[in-house]
Amino acid sequence: MTKQTVDLLLTNGYLITMDHQMSLYPRGAVAIKDNTIAGVGPAIELEAAYEAATTVDCQNCIISPGLINAHTHAAMTLLRGLADDLRLDVWLYGYMMPVEREFVNHAYCYIGTQLACAEMIRSGITTFCDMYYHEAEVARATADVGMRAVLAQTILKFPSPDATNYDESLDYCRQFIEQWLGHPLITPAVGPHAPYTATPDMLQNCVALAVEFDVPLHIHIAETALEQKNSRSEYNMTVVPWVEQCNLFQAKVIAAHCVHLETPEMDIMRHHQAGIAHCPSSNLKLASGIAQVQKLVELGLHVGIGTDGPASNNDLDMFEEVRLAAFLQKGAFGDPTALPAKTTWGLATIEGARALHIDHLTGSLEVGKRADIAVIRADQIHQLPYFARDPEAVYSRLVYATKAIDVRDVIIDGRVLMRDRVLLTMNEAEVIEEASRFATSIDAFLIAREGNILSKLLAISADFVPQETYEIQVKVALPELIDIDIILSKLGLNPYRLSVRDQYDTYFLFTDQEPSRLRFREDEVKDEQGNLKHTFYTMTLVGQTGEKEFKNSILLTRARYTASATHSLRFYREYFKPSTEQEVIKLRRRCHINFQGTDFAINLDHVSSTMPNSVYLEIKSRTWSAKDALRKADLIAELLDKLEIKTENLLKAEYINSITQE
Amino acid sequence: MTKQTVDLLLTNGYLITMDHQMSLYPRGAVAIKDNTIAGVGPAIELEAAYEAATTVDCQNCIISPGLINAHTHAAMTLLRGLADDLRLDVWLYGYMMPVEREFVNHAYCYIGTQLACAEMIRSGITTFCDMYYHEAEVARATADVGMRAVLAQTILKFPSPDATNYDESLDYCRQFIEQWLGHPLITPAVGPHAPYTATPDMLQNCVALAVEFDVPLHIHIAETALEQKNSRSEYNMTVVPWVEQCNLFQAKVIAAHCVHLETPEMDIMRHHQAGIAHCPSSNLKLASGIAQVQKLVELGLHVGIGTDGPASNNDLDMFEEVRLAAFLQKGAFGDPTALPAKTTWGLATIEGARALHIDHLTGSLEVGKRADIAVIRADQIHQLPYFARDPEAVYSRLVYATKAIDVRDVIIDGRVLMRDRVLLTMNEAEVIEEASRFATSIDAFLIAREGNILSKLLAISADFVPQETYEIQVKVALPELIDIDIILSKLGLNPYRLSVRDQYDTYFLFTDQEPSRLRFREDEVKDEQGNLKHTFYTMTLVGQTGEKEFKNSILLTRARYTASATHSLRFYREYFKPSTEQEVIKLRRRCHINFQGTDFAINLDHVSSTMPNSVYLEIKSRTWSAKDALRKADLIAELLDKLEIKTENLLKAEYINSITQE
Repeated sequence: MTKQTVDLLLTNGYLITMDHQMSLYPRGAVAIKDNTIAGVGPAIELEAAYEAATTVDCQNCIISPGLINAHTHAAMTLLRGLADDLRLDVWLYGYMMPVEREFVNHAYCYIGTQLACAEMIRSGITTFCDMYYHEAEVARATADVGMRAVLAQTILKFPSPDATNYDESLDYCRQFIEQWLGHPLITPAVGPHAPYTATPDMLQNCVALAVEFDVPLHIHIAETALEQKNSRSEYNMTVVPWVEQCNLFQAKVIAAHCVHLETPEMDIMRHHQAGIAHCPSSNLKLASGIAQVQKLVELGLHVGIGTDGPASNNDLDMFEEVRLAAFLQKGAFGDPTALPAKTTWGLATIEGARALHIDHLTGSLEVGKRADIAVIRADQIHQLPYFARDPEAVYSRLVYATKAIDVRDVIIDGRVLMRDRVLLTMNEAEVIEEASRFATSIDAFLIAREGNILSKLLAISADFVPQETYEIQVKVALPELIDIDIILSKLGLNPYRLSVRDQYDTYFLFTDQEPSRLRFREDEVKDEQGNLKHTFYTMTLVGQTGEKEFKNSILLTRARYTASATHSLRFYREYFKPSTEQEVIKLRRRCHINFQGTDFAINLDHVSSTMPNSVYLEIKSRTWSAKDALRKADLIAELLDKLEIKTENLLKAEYINSITQE
Repeated sequence: MTKQTVDLLLTNGYLITMDHQMSLYPRGAVAIKDNTIAGVGPAIELEAAYEAATTVDCQNCIISPGLINAHTHAAMTLLRGLADDLRLDVWLYGYMMPVEREFVNHAYCYIGTQLACAEMIRSGITTFCDMYYHEAEVARATADVGMRAVLAQTILKFPSPDATNYDESLDYCRQFIEQWLGHPLITPAVGPHAPYTATPDMLQNCVALAVEFDVPLHIHIAETALEQKNSRSEYNMTVVPWVEQCNLFQAKVIAAHCVHLETPEMDIMRHHQAGIAHCPSSNLKLASGIAQVQKLVELGLHVGIGTDGPASNNDLDMFEEVRLAAFLQKGAFGDPTALPAKTTWGLATIEGARALHIDHLTGSLEVGKRADIAVIRADQIHQLPYFARDPEAVYSRLVYATKAIDVRDVIIDGRVLMRDRVLLTMNEAEVIEEASRFATSIDAFLIAREGNILSKLLAISADFVPQETYEIQVKVALPELIDIDIILSKLGLNPYRLSVRDQYDTYFLFTDQEPSRLRFREDEVKDEQGNLKHTFYTMTLVGQTGEKEFKNSILLTRARYTASATHSLRFYREYFKPSTEQEVIKLRRRCHINFQGTDFAINLDHVSSTMPNSVYLEIKSRTWSAKDALRKADLIAELLDKLEIKTENLLKAEYINSITQE
């Protein structure tokens, strides 16, 4: 009998197939021809049957299907360790998004992805599922290295680093799919980021595109409790029924996270054969919660395991994820038999492939599938000793005691990408150098920003137009609360834009910065009966007070940048980290007057703070030039005269300074 | 100026001191003379000040205090991966304790500890805190390698692998302390295992011993919710107040786990300066729960991090523990800012030293402390790129993106134990070989045991005396439930030992074993009014039914081993893993009679199962010989005659077989 010719024979290892019977061969072999598995079985049989161009001895090693990283944002390696231990919004809106807006381009995506590929190959990963920007560059980087991947182009309802609107993203995504469809390694996909960053229309367009080309659709689902809460209040239903209503499940869905699914939502997803990517490190690190993986598995859903992006992990190590996934189910749900090692290794391989809708290609070692294989050393000190009693104890060794560093060789699509821990298809040093160059630029960008409150404010404010103005103002302490009409009648002027409001001001003070202050203001505007009409929030950067003082304590204050505050006070506090804070609460009756052709705001403030006198009259106006300021100071002096204000009642400060001085 | 002479200079690394100011030197150095740190500071200054016999360049490395593994059972490396994904009791009573009873001896403790030391040094650990048996052997193994350790001799109220009672353990512990006290590396300690395995008297003796020699006392505290529940029902208080009452805190306590502490218990421990060892992997893997570490830290308690024994982890990798500790606090308590990287690295170093009461020796890099140092590579692909913006980002790199494999050199007590990942003070290959020999013996022991239900039963039954007997019996179906007095009056005999009870029998059936059955029986014994008197549980191994059949369907059944069942039905189910189970529930009226000088049991059973006829009369007797069996069969036949039993009513089976046949 003549031997069949193959390209590669991995032999003499402990072979884990992850096939339907979960077959194990304690001394097994895999034969590979071109990119495909030609034979799987006992080493002795395969050595007799095949003549291999290359034979690799795998003694003291486990031969396993390569690991599948079911969810990541690979190129975010370039943001690894940039900002940690922060709340999700501060991390995302304060750091990730501003830096991405500034730096994400073709080169960034290519280098970031290659850095990720190097790390992933080194931890035995053969396939990953990605969602990012400029996804064609991600594809190019991945294909150049030779990894398998499902790559989803991100689509958002708002502008993103690679598009000004979602129509542009959809057009780009279509081109991307057309370009890469049918590639032996790359499965292009559509990536609407999440239900809460999509419109129904946008989602439906994404589904149509995915269905048209029969490619997967990758999306974040129910990552946080807040997402479910918002969905309930906005749509009167949880996230999964809502996206089902948008026809999402007509596509082959890969849903990342699924931390906060209710049981009926799990049933819907199972019914539609949606895949799930469980990301335990990220869910813990960002405090999103703990997904009910054991339950999902029991219900028959296909759950893979993912690292998520390296900015929320902070690495791409599937061994860490696998171990954590198994531990977390036991510890969080009080059952040490939950997610046993064999099941967990399944999630990392064949179930991951099913979740990604590519189990016809990869995920197990079976004849006809692509040769995606990790050869893992099993003789390292942290794995020993070895008990032969239970053949399935190999899974517990892999899940509980084996590390990324133990991966010796990696084969993807029949090609050896790593041999004895040396990467054969990429120049790591070059990638590291280019990555370092990006890091240096990002550092410089952030150092400049962090050293300056204005730029730090601008970095998080999409609608924030820097607009430098001056304010000319005077404050007068009044003996008691009086009606604003009395003041206006003294002036003989007609007021307009009258309003009454409660103002809650929080000032952030900085000792280590230029003498700026940030003010977060909540305005509760009342109607004539004193009922709340509406609330709005503004964030104002206040420059140095009293840049110039005119007679009668009339002050010129410079550089006020104001915009609506889109985040919470807590967000700004954690983002700006002020040295101290100061609160000023006041009831403000406000109107405008026109005095000699010039607009002035008149505020009658009842300040509920520890100030000597709690009622103040404020007259102020905006100005853009020093000359104009002088003219307006004169006009204010005239107004003070008309009101018979005594000089000793003039307050030569803003409320905040006055309080601070006490 | 002449240079000061030192033995070793580590220079040009990113130096983390963990001193009171948390000083960092981005280009720092440490000078070491003998076993002590002589200088710490900027590389340029130290290079100028010292003349070193050996200088080690640490470019691209972090120089950190060595990690402190605050709780482990090092020698249990020899049980790594032996049994996983089991419930705590099955794992402990079914596997760990039987194997330890059989194998733990001097050689086991020495080899197991050395295997652990190799792994720990490789992951940057310089100090560990241990609790095990034959602790003097653990000390010898540790000192031979050159690691620092706090080593506690285990003391239990019941027999242990190295003592028949706790007085013996206390004597041994005293000798152990006297032998090792004052050793430069070893701090001997007293190790009462846990409050629930101690008597108050035993605890007080342990405290007295620890106080006498001023050594630490290491104990497990509040590891499980059950422990707290039992303490409440037994002592009417939680664990910490109870041990406080036993004077525990007069000693320098190191309390492992502390998963289920209430706030007042935390206050008690803080008041007494007790150290805590948090073991996140073990607490998750055994589903014990999640300790409130952030809260403990906020309260000012000294918390270290431990791996626990490698049988519940399954490795001794402090980098995994540190990362998990940080992640878990965030995820489990919903706060991504909880346990930030800097704090967490502190727990693994200086706080660990404080928890172990040896912070005067180790835990930070400060002049005068012992030189316990890890040099950790910081230029690996999974750690890159590097952002220089925030100097403290070094902590996040260490905690979130650095692995055990990145540790390059380890210095303990001034001596280099690992250089470029080569261990210099031990022969790893030899240790691995000896460990493998133990594994082979343990394998053989368990294979023999697992293949035989009796031996598996014996392995977990301290009071279980194998006692082979025969039972001779007959069963008769009755048309209806009748009074047992009617039967007895027909026989004209006086009954004795009359009882009424509900019996709940669960039979474990095995398809792949010899035709044995295990019966778990719950007996609820009633008084004359039908009220529950007491409940007891028995576990019986039943051999083949109907080994011999006499006339009138009188059966001889062989080999019954019976003992009280000390574990739950659930325990036995998970431990024996039966192929199927069968339940028989019956109300049994029972008495004994003396017929012609021979004792017979008469059972009138009302079986509530799906049997054709639900009322049965059973006559049975025990026998030890076939000859005696024949004689008793004849006597039973006589009794049947007296009762005018019709042959067609005889049931030629036990209840279980009768049900199974339907």
